[in-house]
Amino acid sequence: MNSYGTLFKVTLYGESHQAAIGVIVDGVKPGTMIDETKIAADMELRKPKVIGTTPRKEDDQVIITSGVFNGIATGSPIHLMIENKNIKSKDYENLKTQPRPGHADFVANIKYQGFQDFRGGGRFSGRLTAPLVAAGSIAKMMLPFDFSYELIQIGTLKDMNLIDEYVNTIIQEGESVGGIVQLKVKNVNVGLGEPFFEKLDAEIAKMMFSIPAVKGVEFGIGFEGVTLKGSSFNDIIIDQDGHTKTNHSGGITGGISNGNDIEFKVFVKPTSSIQKSQNTFNFESKEITELKIGGRHDVAIVRRIGIVLENALAIVMADAYLKSKIYQ
Amino acid sequence: MNSYGTLFKVTLYGESHQAAIGVIVDGVKPGTMIDETKIAADMELRKPKVIGTTPRKEDDQVIITSGVFNGIATGSPIHLMIENKNIKSKDYENLKTQPRPGHADFVANIKYQGFQDFRGGGRFSGRLTAPLVAAGSIAKMMLPFDFSYELIQIGTLKDMNLIDEYVNTIIQEGESVGGIVQLKVKNVNVGLGEPFFEKLDAEIAKMMFSIPAVKGVEFGIGFEGVTLKGSSFNDIIIDQDGHTKTNHSGGITGGISNGNDIEFKVFVKPTSSIQKSQNTFNFESKEITELKIGGRHDVAIVRRIGIVLENALAIVMADAYLKSKIYQ
Amino acid sequence: MNSYGTLFKVTLYGESHQAAIGVIVDGVKPGTMIDETKIAADMELRKPKVIGTTPRKEDDQVIITSGVFNGIATGSPIHLMIENKNIKSKDYENLKTQPRPGHADFVANIKYQGFQDFRGGGRFSGRLTAPLVAAGSIAKMMLPFDFSYELIQIGTLKDMNLIDEYVNTIIQEGESVGGIVQLKVKNVNVGLGEPFFEKLDAEIAKMMFSIPAVKGVEFGIGFEGVTLKGSSFNDIIIDQDGHTKTNHSGGITGGISNGNDIEFKVFVKPTSSIQKSQNTFNFESKEITELKIGGRHDVAIVRRIGIVLENALAIVMADAYLKSKIYQ
Amino acid sequence: MNSYGTLFKVTLYGESHQAAIGVIVDGVKPGTMIDETKIAADMELRKPKVIGTTPRKEDDQVIITSGVFNGIATGSPIHLMIENKNIKSKDYENLKTQPRPGHADFVANIKYQGFQDFRGGGRFSGRLTAPLVAAGSIAKMMLPFDFSYELIQIGTLKDMNLIDEYVNTIIQEGESVGGIVQLKVKNVNVGLGEPFFEKLDAEIAKMMFSIPAVKGVEFGIGFEGVTLKGSSFNDIIIDQDGHTKTNHSGGITGGISNGNDIEFKVFVKPTSSIQKSQNTFNFESKEITELKIGGRHDVAIVRRIGIVLENALAIVMADAYLKSKIYQ
Repeated sequence: MNSYGTLFKVTLYGESHQAAIGVIVDGVKPGTMIDETKIAADMELRKPKVIGTTPRKEDDQVIITSGVFNGIATGSPIHLMIENKNIKSKDYENLKTQPRPGHADFVANIKYQGFQDFRGGGRFSGRLTAPLVAAGSIAKMMLPFDFSYELIQIGTLKDMNLIDEYVNTIIQEGESVGGIVQLKVKNVNVGLGEPFFEKLDAEIAKMMFSIPAVKGVEFGIGFEGVTLKGSSFNDIIIDQDGHTKTNHSGGITGGISNGNDIEFKVFVKPTSSIQKSQNTFNFESKEITELKIGGRHDVAIVRRIGIVLENALAIVMADAYLKSKIYQ
Repeated sequence: MNSYGTLFKVTLYGESHQAAIGVIVDGVKPGTMIDETKIAADMELRKPKVIGTTPRKEDDQVIITSGVFNGIATGSPIHLMIENKNIKSKDYENLKTQPRPGHADFVANIKYQGFQDFRGGGRFSGRLTAPLVAAGSIAKMMLPFDFSYELIQIGTLKDMNLIDEYVNTIIQEGESVGGIVQLKVKNVNVGLGEPFFEKLDAEIAKMMFSIPAVKGVEFGIGFEGVTLKGSSFNDIIIDQDGHTKTNHSGGITGGISNGNDIEFKVFVKPTSSIQKSQNTFNFESKEITELKIGGRHDVAIVRRIGIVLENALAIVMADAYLKSKIYQ
Repeated sequence: MNSYGTLFKVTLYGESHQAAIGVIVDGVKPGTMIDETKIAADMELRKPKVIGTTPRKEDDQVIITSGVFNGIATGSPIHLMIENKNIKSKDYENLKTQPRPGHADFVANIKYQGFQDFRGGGRFSGRLTAPLVAAGSIAKMMLPFDFSYELIQIGTLKDMNLIDEYVNTIIQEGESVGGIVQLKVKNVNVGLGEPFFEKLDAEIAKMMFSIPAVKGVEFGIGFEGVTLKGSSFNDIIIDQDGHTKTNHSGGITGGISNGNDIEFKVFVKPTSSIQKSQNTFNFESKEITELKIGGRHDVAIVRRIGIVLENALAIVMADAYLKSKIYQ
Repeated sequence: MNSYGTLFKVTLYGESHQAAIGVIVDGVKPGTMIDETKIAADMELRKPKVIGTTPRKEDDQVIITSGVFNGIATGSPIHLMIENKNIKSKDYENLKTQPRPGHADFVANIKYQGFQDFRGGGRFSGRLTAPLVAAGSIAKMMLPFDFSYELIQIGTLKDMNLIDEYVNTIIQEGESVGGIVQLKVKNVNVGLGEPFFEKLDAEIAKMMFSIPAVKGVEFGIGFEGVTLKGSSFNDIIIDQDGHTKTNHSGGITGGISNGNDIEFKVFVKPTSSIQKSQNTFNFESKEITELKIGGRHDVAIVRRIGIVLENALAIVMADAYLKSKIYQ
């Protein structure tokens, strides 16, 4: 249940404060050039840097221990590992007693019967997205598609030129904000996605909701399209490659890529950890008590989640792409 | 790729105009009472009846050919079959030349190299949701949860008391409309969902996007929550069962059910087939030409999609439920 | 758990005495000619006819209800169904009290907590191999390989010219016999099989042991090869297509087809149901008591299991074949 | 395709001469004590020590990087890694030109289009069984069963008291030998195994054939049982726990554990690498030429394969065990 994909398959492991986190990537075409500088570049994009991201330093060097020989994929599974360094565990000792609002502390404690590694959120930590980014980099090396992402809203702000200013006010308030990220894939061939249960939009949505903090996914015009009537909503085909006049459906019809850009929006909730005091239930005193979360946290994780979403998407596209090749 | 689930598993087959459609349901607990009247009742809810649904008659009698003995599940896979009756195929002959806007005609023709059964949309037809409803009925018989759905918006209308009137105007215009359906599950225990890639929200979203016409899914407060700051968004735990003051997260934290109601919204696009003429590309003449779709279609499929979404959801919940039992 | 395969996938359902048994075949290349007379011919080979097979009449007409349009595979799952006719259930009422030796009566009763459909062995009946044969026929239509099987030993008899005479003596004794069947596949390309856990021999063995009554599988020279030393056992490559001087490895090296004939032997145990009285534990009287099994049974199921093994093998080969195409 | 299992799932990676090999073990019950000394003890059993095993030193220290906290399984995937040390790659440079008899050199070169890491056999190396042993150790920690293995034949020798003497003659001849290993599992509850395609014997056979060098598997009395008639072959139940007078079926009926000892035999072919010169096809000169394999190899890998088979079996049993728990 830690694997995604049929032909291009990733299997994740790791917890925030254990020795290492990593991923096995299976199904990379033998002969694919594995460019480690591209992996490093994507990892760099995930790092906290801009205002509103955590001041903690994560030195995420990706080590490849198998599946690559002389810079080329061998056809064996590729194992990518990232050591967890700079681990400070003292801040997390009372998570069982006082579950942090918005975090998985409470559910993890029930589900894993108290045996979970609670430090830093354990397997629920956003850190697990680091190997996912690395795996996605490899997926992109195999694919002829162009991926991009854009932050289109953060909190109430839609004009991204004002973003640092806006986020600074959030920091001052000891608060956090969420946002909306738009993803695009260009140059996608017609035919990706397998009905009935591996439709391309279904798989993309599944992957997006696997990323911590994602609470909504909509394709093309999305929920806003509820106000359109059929004749306006329908995308009219205008050439023999299937290009359409509008792209309300986000490049996917009947669960299958239709030759137009794949487009969808992802809602990322406000970061759960905030500087401000909050209430939570205290399982020792059996009362609602105040909790102040220590440590230094992202106030706008949405500012660095773009590459995570893009690369997670690439994993989905790689699997769909290989499946679409079977009968050719 | 026509299967969903690990322990509770459904495998679909069928095309709109072939002899039969059906589903194999695997993983039903031996000894579960299989009440065929409940299946029939759910099938009835899916039938077109209200204003805005197709005047075509679908007599969807579900036949069980295996896995049930004296009204009780044996532990073998249950096969449910629905014969396709009242099939008229003449209306569908020019779908390859003139793909209908919003439909999968074009992508299917590319993907299946012209061999697809194009009649009535073939495997892309909404008819495939009939066996899904039947399978979901069985899922509900196995589960202690309470499912419900509610149509909360149709086109621009949010006051459902005015719905027949509103839909009639859409009919008059030869148009169609979409809508938003809210789903709820009550009495869900803490611990359903398996990180990293079988989180409960991820699985639910995947299933919802598998249903034809669904283009958006959001949990709890959804996209609207982008305007909230962390302290307002976070759901505060108020008792030792994990109940929270608000339910912005829709009953799922870290991909795991948290003991509150599962709540999410689904955007259903306007029905693609409309009475009005539309343009489409003509693959024979290589020009954009006008197309008038014959036959009688739903103008608001969203009026009868609720039971489909609910029962599809039940399939996801059944699989998650069985997984949550493994270590108990 | 009733499915086999990743890309070419079969999902079985049915029990001996329910309304129907069947199979969904997914992954058939769109455009594949589906020749129903070939399916019928294979079904005919499975029917009891020769001496030593049951005098019961099974009229196994295969009905296709989806996935085939104008005799050609559409790319949708193909559903093949066989109705269970001529069912007499009265002979099976005391299986729970007195489990038949060699049969699954006892284990089924524990595993399915008494809810199993015990009539005719339920899902453990050899009847389940009928849809498997039908699915295998379709697999063969998609493959460029040549399949064959040969009965090389029955009971103590190795000279098949004497077989009717030999089997008649077994019938006279009220006994049953097993046998050894050799399977071959010719014209197999190099490269089928996916290490580490989907090696071709591993998948073949898994499938063979799924067939009721199979208790041993050996490739190439098999167990007899234990007496050879390395220099004699090793198959020496003699040309650039990888042909080898000997074929002790049965056409598979490192779990991958090596371009030589796939060859293996399957041991089929003596039919469990015999005319002679046997002892078994009586769960009512809590004593060992005598049991005489009524009805008319195969005394040498091995005489008609060949086509079952061949077609089951074809399913494995089809899945491996599609996988081998992914990166080409 | 490098994963085995549904609920207890192992995912392997690694090649003989890359930085590390390893395995992710998913599905370990939270709270299971993970005793690293037991893992080390099993790894020790796999090491070459006795006469007839390679004089090469493999220092297989298993590092756990996730999923274990304070010596206890957390419920997250457990990653076990073994670094490849003492790697000498110079001996393997001409494998592409002159494929070694019995090895996967030729098939790998075709399948992976020349991109495979050929050093030391790459992913086809017996080294991949090291992480499998480690994973199996963990499986055994979760299970209430008793596992054992016994070498019952080596080459032509059946009296194991003479084994060192016998193997020495093989070494003198520059030859190698295979053997037969018998595996047993005691204290297995009734009900493990899921028909139709995850029968216990089918899964065990699949796993055994995944181990390099295995060419035959037979349950209970195996192929020898072909000479028995039904009344002799059938195992008669003698008490209400399902114990049988004989165990010709090897503890499995209808693909389900029947409460008796699981018993089966595995044929391990003679080690392919031998000291003696052999012929092989030379892909440069296009002629059959002589090949002398350098390095130091096991002449009787069968002397140390027992723990590999046992622990691989434990993985199968763990998955079947968890599945059998679902409806309890």
